[in-house]
Amino acid sequence: MFVSVVLLVLMLCAHGGRGEDDVKKQSRGHVSVVIVGGTGDLARKYLWQGFFQLYLNHVSMGNTFSFYAGGQSPPDKATPIFFDIVKAVSCTKDVPEQRCAVLKEQFLRLAQYRQLKTPEDYQDLSKHIERQAQEEGLTEAGRLFYLSVPAFAYADVANKIHTGCRPAAGGAWLRVVLEKPFGHDLRSAQVLAAQLGNSLQEEEMYRIDHYLGKQVVSKILPFRVENRKFLDPIWNKQHIERIEIVMKETLDVKGRIPFYDQYGVIRDVIQNHLTEVLTLLMMKLPANLSDSEEILQNKLHVFSSLLPLGKNQAVMGQYQAYQAEVQQELNKTKDHVSLTPTFAAVLAHTEAAQYEGVPVLLLAGKMLDQRVGYARVLFKNDVFCVQDQHNLHCKPKQIIFYFGHGNLQYPAVLVTKNLFKPSVMEGKWKEVTEQADILVVGLPASHYYILTPKVQQEAYAELISHIFTGHKNTFISTENLLASWGFWTPLLQSLAGSFPRIYPGGADNGDLLDVCLKGKEIGFTSEAVIISPDHIGGASAASFQTMQGKFRNGTMVSAWAEELVECLAADIQEAAEAAVLQGGVFHLALSGGATPIALFQRLALHHFSFPWRNTHIWMVDERCVPLSDSESNFFNLQRHLLQHVHVPYLNIHPMLVQVGQRLCVEDDHAVQMYQEEITNHVNASSFHFVLLGVGHDGHTASLFPGGDATDSQEGLVVLSESPVKPHRRMSLTLGAINRAQKVAVLVLGKSKHELITQLSRSKDRPDKWPVTGVRPSEGSLVWYIDYDALLG
Amino acid sequence: MFVSVVLLVLMLCAHGGRGEDDVKKQSRGHVSVVIVGGTGDLARKYLWQGFFQLYLNHVSMGNTFSFYAGGQSPPDKATPIFFDIVKAVSCTKDVPEQRCAVLKEQFLRLAQYRQLKTPEDYQDLSKHIERQAQEEGLTEAGRLFYLSVPAFAYADVANKIHTGCRPAAGGAWLRVVLEKPFGHDLRSAQVLAAQLGNSLQEEEMYRIDHYLGKQVVSKILPFRVENRKFLDPIWNKQHIERIEIVMKETLDVKGRIPFYDQYGVIRDVIQNHLTEVLTLLMMKLPANLSDSEEILQNKLHVFSSLLPLGKNQAVMGQYQAYQAEVQQELNKTKDHVSLTPTFAAVLAHTEAAQYEGVPVLLLAGKMLDQRVGYARVLFKNDVFCVQDQHNLHCKPKQIIFYFGHGNLQYPAVLVTKNLFKPSVMEGKWKEVTEQADILVVGLPASHYYILTPKVQQEAYAELISHIFTGHKNTFISTENLLASWGFWTPLLQSLAGSFPRIYPGGADNGDLLDVCLKGKEIGFTSEAVIISPDHIGGASAASFQTMQGKFRNGTMVSAWAEELVECLAADIQEAAEAAVLQGGVFHLALSGGATPIALFQRLALHHFSFPWRNTHIWMVDERCVPLSDSESNFFNLQRHLLQHVHVPYLNIHPMLVQVGQRLCVEDDHAVQMYQEEITNHVNASSFHFVLLGVGHDGHTASLFPGGDATDSQEGLVVLSESPVKPHRRMSLTLGAINRAQKVAVLVLGKSKHELITQLSRSKDRPDKWPVTGVRPSEGSLVWYIDYDALLG
Repeated sequence: MFVSVVLLVLMLCAHGGRGEDDVKKQSRGHVSVVIVGGTGDLARKYLWQGFFQLYLNHVSMGNTFSFYAGGQSPPDKATPIFFDIVKAVSCTKDVPEQRCAVLKEQFLRLAQYRQLKTPEDYQDLSKHIERQAQEEGLTEAGRLFYLSVPAFAYADVANKIHTGCRPAAGGAWLRVVLEKPFGHDLRSAQVLAAQLGNSLQEEEMYRIDHYLGKQVVSKILPFRVENRKFLDPIWNKQHIERIEIVMKETLDVKGRIPFYDQYGVIRDVIQNHLTEVLTLLMMKLPANLSDSEEILQNKLHVFSSLLPLGKNQAVMGQYQAYQAEVQQELNKTKDHVSLTPTFAAVLAHTEAAQYEGVPVLLLAGKMLDQRVGYARVLFKNDVFCVQDQHNLHCKPKQIIFYFGHGNLQYPAVLVTKNLFKPSVMEGKWKEVTEQADILVVGLPASHYYILTPKVQQEAYAELISHIFTGHKNTFISTENLLASWGFWTPLLQSLAGSFPRIYPGGADNGDLLDVCLKGKEIGFTSEAVIISPDHIGGASAASFQTMQGKFRNGTMVSAWAEELVECLAADIQEAAEAAVLQGGVFHLALSGGATPIALFQRLALHHFSFPWRNTHIWMVDERCVPLSDSESNFFNLQRHLLQHVHVPYLNIHPMLVQVGQRLCVEDDHAVQMYQEEITNHVNASSFHFVLLGVGHDGHTASLFPGGDATDSQEGLVVLSESPVKPHRRMSLTLGAINRAQKVAVLVLGKSKHELITQLSRSKDRPDKWPVTGVRPSEGSLVWYIDYDALLG
Repeated sequence: MFVSVVLLVLMLCAHGGRGEDDVKKQSRGHVSVVIVGGTGDLARKYLWQGFFQLYLNHVSMGNTFSFYAGGQSPPDKATPIFFDIVKAVSCTKDVPEQRCAVLKEQFLRLAQYRQLKTPEDYQDLSKHIERQAQEEGLTEAGRLFYLSVPAFAYADVANKIHTGCRPAAGGAWLRVVLEKPFGHDLRSAQVLAAQLGNSLQEEEMYRIDHYLGKQVVSKILPFRVENRKFLDPIWNKQHIERIEIVMKETLDVKGRIPFYDQYGVIRDVIQNHLTEVLTLLMMKLPANLSDSEEILQNKLHVFSSLLPLGKNQAVMGQYQAYQAEVQQELNKTKDHVSLTPTFAAVLAHTEAAQYEGVPVLLLAGKMLDQRVGYARVLFKNDVFCVQDQHNLHCKPKQIIFYFGHGNLQYPAVLVTKNLFKPSVMEGKWKEVTEQADILVVGLPASHYYILTPKVQQEAYAELISHIFTGHKNTFISTENLLASWGFWTPLLQSLAGSFPRIYPGGADNGDLLDVCLKGKEIGFTSEAVIISPDHIGGASAASFQTMQGKFRNGTMVSAWAEELVECLAADIQEAAEAAVLQGGVFHLALSGGATPIALFQRLALHHFSFPWRNTHIWMVDERCVPLSDSESNFFNLQRHLLQHVHVPYLNIHPMLVQVGQRLCVEDDHAVQMYQEEITNHVNASSFHFVLLGVGHDGHTASLFPGGDATDSQEGLVVLSESPVKPHRRMSLTLGAINRAQKVAVLVLGKSKHELITQLSRSKDRPDKWPVTGVRPSEGSLVWYIDYDALLG
């Protein structure tokens, strides 16, 4: 049965309410709340309390409610359990005792358990809701389903809701709330999103990240807006030294291993909670703080400007007792080794102009010395104190978004007094004026202005209220979710198989997990300790070394791919410096394709003293597509290298494959023009360094087996035909290549092993294997072949 | 008379010397040392002691010596004074007392005073030296002239030496030593250098900067070499937070006003001493530390990569008592105001890839709280301590080259222990292991590894020994000197007429002189105080405000030039953000010429969140010269803006005035191609923002009065003729300009005042005043006119 809450409230409040007698006229309809998995752990701990809170706050606002706990068990078994849970809800302190008792009683009368297992169960629930509404003469406002079930059940439940339990009434809404995990990588998240998309509209889905319900997290954007006049001049790469987003926990994961061991700390809290904080800190401020669509777009923009993470941008740890817990909970033998990290620190960077080069450290772990969560924006030390280097102005400047726990024990936003005094615009926040003498993120509390919420509220209560009001920007949209997984998945893949550093846990960790930033990379500060039982890993130190030898007519350098690329980049820089020293200029010709991308990134991100201003960039070959096409070699060169370094515009020499709207038309004389450009700039048309790749068919540059272009000994540039699309190409000739002072051939990956084996045996047959025609007449030739290609 | 030192030494050392009996056979010839101004202050305080030290060190090494003090006074007057000075010289502690007495007696016998006034005096000295050498049977090794005379006398003395006192002997060298000042700006330094060049060869000149004789300063390069393996990974912009070069003095300049008031602190110590330290810190390491030529070239390279200094890169102060001292010493009335700074802090940056963006602070002043000199290389805080944010690794990391005085009291190189333990390669240095509990540049001494010279030596003694051994790289070459003045002169010019902040002097300065870095600029941290007596300055606060109004058919914004440019830059960014928000792209067309350069710099250095990646850059006009010519508009755009920001290569649209070797040939269809490029990229060929200038003749873009191009209403692009060279131009048409959404005309400087007055009265006459043809059909037109142009 429904209880007409509106009437009851009127009775209760007649002597004290403010205008609550108007409520009935404004009745906003009936809301059904269904917690699927309503007798589970989360529901017990947070959800029913959260919905009771919602009821308390909204009972006098014109809606009527009913609450359902759905579960697999039959009602006779589950109902008593359910009422035990619901009876435990409590009011906030501001509610008078008597009123609380009445409201709690009402709430209990509005709540019931229902079995929700089969499609029919959902249909029955729907009929029940409709019938009751009719009986009570109420209009249905909407149905709120909270899915507190394992993620694998989401699609099924969503489908049952969609097919059997949508509100029929035209204006009534459907909202379905989901809890993480939402997949464990991009692929699985896409699959899940697609499945949910079959049943639910985007606006019907509310994916919860409870961090977004934390008061300090949801204060980040308003704080940035309210303090805009102070922040605008300093909220950029010129002033921010770095950003740290930290979530330290003291607990272990005992009892949760079956879940946790599949996920690990990055998926568990970094991909979602800490990444959401990152987007709030770095997104462009929306014109309107309640414009969910603009906020989403600005968040997506943060993701698209984050630089891809490689495995050197993360370190991982695992607490010592974890292995035994895994063996026990997963019923494994002592041989079983889990590589799941329980600690990770990740160093992210963005290419957004505003924050370019600012290190963003995301760090989280279990079994650390302290429980604390915060985001810290540390500013550069931009003051020089002539006389007293210990005055306040010369101390660190920082803003801390302190989520809670730790030394401070309460959520707060802290701004060091040498920055500015933050506004307290919104009535819900106050300034803390008396503060114990404690350290907060490295500085005494007295160094800060401290803002804190007047009333602390649990994240779930906050979020449940947002679901009810349809306030979507504290939830994770599908696009947001997929963008986040898109960012994290490559890192997770590249870390798979890496051994986390083992740490004892608690204060004993000492400095074992301290990390340092090395350029764009991150590492532990202390030396690696022997972490692995004997059975872990077979790689000896020697197998990571670079080796030198001979290959065909040249020198060969070989190493694992990453070291090899480092080595090649260093060799190019050395050649560049020598050339600049000698003649003031370095002419570098680069190939396209996928292989050199790692090299481009290495040069862009690690070679800070490369003489780019004195370097001319030439193309070894180009595909006959517009230069702005993502297939264009030049486009990729620009994307992965040129946009990150300062090569003067006039030193960049793309091949002009496009003239007007025409691509590689002989009449346009593009070949002659490029040839002329080379002879005008490059002394004796002899490039200082030419970087080549080699294809599976033995092609190099865009000189393919059996092609006319490959024979061509005249000229420096030719048009050629590729057996694969796009067929038309422009390429340097073997003649041009062989005039160079240094030529490098870079070969990476197992798929090239067969080719390398063949090449090691075959004679020079440029018609069959164009790459064998690379024989610099005066210069040197070095093959850079990684172990995968060399050894298979 | 000459004394045969070699024999005396043999006598002295027969019982204790190590192989000194070989000395006679190796006699290296006779050296004549002449201090011109040999009875003056500097000679009395440092030079004779320095030369005695030289004598002590070299007496047993095979040379014979004689020493002359030259002066204006006749010998009968000056000789007694001279011997009073010379008698005061003393031995270092390591010389036994008896030996010291003998050597000092010898030294006195080798020294004499001579009048050196007329050319004949110099000729007489020359004859005297030759005759004596002949009599004693000695070969002349060389003559060392130390010019301890006012700088205005340098050219004259050098000429007298050149014409009358060069050594005749073929192999004998001439070395002439000069002390600062070497001019007071680039022009005067060039004049002085040219005058000296008439008399002396470059290799004969030894310009002293006594800072280069300081043991720690001359240790900078060896330290960098010896610790290369530690420094190479961190000595770059990724790791260095900033560099500070500081010289604080407690003294005033009383008694030196006639000199000092002409120079001020920048010329007195920053242009020379601190700048030399800067070059040593930032130069590329030479392959060979004794290769003077390579060191010079590398130093010059530092100068050429320093970004030009504007007046916002410096702050100045003057101690309070200075005015009274000036009035007294220069015999001025109370009305006289000197603007000479006694304190300055300058913020320099380089565009060298290695240090790009690293702030370099040069700071020096009189009457400060403490006497101390040091260079500090502060590294970025690159460690995150998970547990204990107070452990050593999370403390500041820095290397201090401590020149002396201050808390430490002795010269030293200090490296914080969280960086590395420096090598003590050279036998002359040792590690300090016991250190009092004092603070050194912000950190306790115990935080550092400290290296110090085993024996402290005065800079002059060191330098005199270098002059004697011909060790040129501790002296300032002409090229080095001119490069330094070339760097400093524009700043000195732009600061002329600025009021220094008055400071009380000593510890009372408090934080009055503290400075903060704001992006590329520097300012005092504390609010300006009223510094000026009533008669200083007439500018009221209001006169610095921006005003808005109407001008001709558009809006007018007016302000002082700097504010105006800031305002325009902000307006362009606003337009860019709006366009990118709406359509994802911003099309900006920019004019060439000198006026917009300040705008380009402003955009490059201050607009960190400008959406460059979404911006297309178009040219309003171009001169028919190669794009790499410094006359090219594009070249200057590249230099002042594009090389500093990340505009994708394919978004940059230079006008193709050059095709092959031909410039603006109609047959090459460059006009049509640019037009096509515009229509292909720009929606309705309507640029979002067009920036124009206006010439004295009323031309805008490259549309000149009476030109055909100016009439042209068809097409978007034309070739035009300029009345001044280079005559041929390419330009957008008025038609193209008037399609734009926003058009800005920027007018700066008094020289445009007449034009602005005329334009304000004249009707639209594009044939006469092409700029009056700018009438956007749909868009808006804003005139940005600075107060100089507006008010004259």
